[in-house]
Amino acid sequence: MQVINGTMNLKLQEGSHGIVVKNLYLSCDPYMRSRMTRVEGPNVFTSYSPGSPLTGFGVAKVLDSGHPNFKKGDLIWGTTSWEEYSLITVLEGLFKIEHTDVPLSYYTGILGAVGQLVGQFAKLMGCYVVGSAGSKEKVDLLRNKFGFDEAFNYKEETDLVGALKRSVSSSLFLSVTWYFPEGIDIYFENVGGEMLDAVLLNMKDHGRISVCGQVSQYNILDQPEGVQNLMCLIYKRIHMKGFVVFDYYNIYPKFLDVMLPYIREGKIMYVEDIAEGLESGPAALVGLYSGRNVGKQVVLFARE
Amino acid sequence: MQVINGTMNLKLQEGSHGIVVKNLYLSCDPYMRSRMTRVEGPNVFTSYSPGSPLTGFGVAKVLDSGHPNFKKGDLIWGTTSWEEYSLITVLEGLFKIEHTDVPLSYYTGILGAVGQLVGQFAKLMGCYVVGSAGSKEKVDLLRNKFGFDEAFNYKEETDLVGALKRSVSSSLFLSVTWYFPEGIDIYFENVGGEMLDAVLLNMKDHGRISVCGQVSQYNILDQPEGVQNLMCLIYKRIHMKGFVVFDYYNIYPKFLDVMLPYIREGKIMYVEDIAEGLESGPAALVGLYSGRNVGKQVVLFARE
Repeated sequence: MQVINGTMNLKLQEGSHGIVVKNLYLSCDPYMRSRMTRVEGPNVFTSYSPGSPLTGFGVAKVLDSGHPNFKKGDLIWGTTSWEEYSLITVLEGLFKIEHTDVPLSYYTGILGAVGQLVGQFAKLMGCYVVGSAGSKEKVDLLRNKFGFDEAFNYKEETDLVGALKRSVSSSLFLSVTWYFPEGIDIYFENVGGEMLDAVLLNMKDHGRISVCGQVSQYNILDQPEGVQNLMCLIYKRIHMKGFVVFDYYNIYPKFLDVMLPYIREGKIMYVEDIAEGLESGPAALVGLYSGRNVGKQVVLFARE
Repeated sequence: MQVINGTMNLKLQEGSHGIVVKNLYLSCDPYMRSRMTRVEGPNVFTSYSPGSPLTGFGVAKVLDSGHPNFKKGDLIWGTTSWEEYSLITVLEGLFKIEHTDVPLSYYTGILGAVGQLVGQFAKLMGCYVVGSAGSKEKVDLLRNKFGFDEAFNYKEETDLVGALKRSVSSSLFLSVTWYFPEGIDIYFENVGGEMLDAVLLNMKDHGRISVCGQVSQYNILDQPEGVQNLMCLIYKRIHMKGFVVFDYYNIYPKFLDVMLPYIREGKIMYVEDIAEGLESGPAALVGLYSGRNVGKQVVLFARE
């Protein structure tokens, strides 16, 4: 990609093995906040450089290609930049989009392992699922659209420990529903801090915690909140494991084989919050940390 | 066991299926502190009752038995009480001692999974082992008697994060030894708090943390120190799992098959700190939390 006399030439330089793309959708993800803080030591993510575009998951269209795996007109998803056009030279993180009968924007989020999907997968596997969200609207979504068994608004809870096990009256006859009468078997950790502490106290023996994120801690500038109940790991023989999605790229085709039929058959519902235009990107990204978005936050850069 | 007219009758009552034992050695273990605080919710350990003897691991001799698995004269180890004689009616936690060519006291500690053994096992399996202890004497033991590759005194470190990766000059020629030049593969967690935080920052990708205890937190009466670096679980895909020794009782015979030859052949060294007499028990137990003991703390109640 060259800029000649102020005119952008959207052709690759002779001999380049990269691709030039037009960015269509960019994904807003909580982990991006941590890339704005310089982290000591090795990190799975590189820090952003002031003055350079953010990078993140996105959907784009190939305008020119010097690589045999991609050709002009291909739709791709993977790591691209928050700009109209990008020259991508590291192609390992890119996938060609083969199925366009689902909205293109889905390819920004479908791999984001967001809570709405995790809970629905758990339901499909026969789990009893309780969701936690930050507004009445979201709680209603979890219950009614995604089919979670229960959901609560953590911002209205003064006692999270109690919330996880408390009884609620669910009918005129005061029949009582317990969220976790025997404790929590599996917790998908995306929050950290106080919520994790409350969950630890409510885990079942031999329970499992999959650690995906700790969004409550990303915007804290000094020291993160400490987690105080790790002794529960011992008493309850808890298994806790962190993961990053990159490590599972090799099974992405298998994931699509499972996921696409679910979407087509309406077994998995997916809610997006789409902001229009590159200029709406910063506010959309910032909104994640106060929970302004309802559903997966995506920024539409351009229509095909 | 009956007390008749102030005289103790060390015979079982007719029809009892329990055993009466004379206690020989009692084990002092850090987890006992947590049993002195009433813990909310279910716990793997029952809390101690004021006015009743402590219970804990011990070695004892059977004086009378109403159970077919035990007979008078048998030596046993398992859960007994801090008193001269005990009536034991719950026999699941008891094991008959078959091998008496190692000191009887070893049976109090050999199952305690104490750090001195863990490090030596790791050495036998070919690991590079660095120990952390609270005095020069203990650091010398780790290095010289137990054969750890390195050891440091955590009480002399003002910067634990640095201590784990810092270079030390090891000869006149200033050759440099790094504790963990590529990070820590396996951490045996028995400390908690600040040490765990320092370790998390120094773990290797896909590292493993076996959570046995958090002794630094047991004596804190209000809130435990929070652990702040759990985000490392994600970045480094760390696997963290708590355990309690009871869950592995079924493989105890297999453990002995491995362990006894190691002890006989001097491949595993074992250091004990034996306090004499029931009356020395409380001080011995309390000493654990300031690290007064050198080696596994045992209380000798009576010689066979």
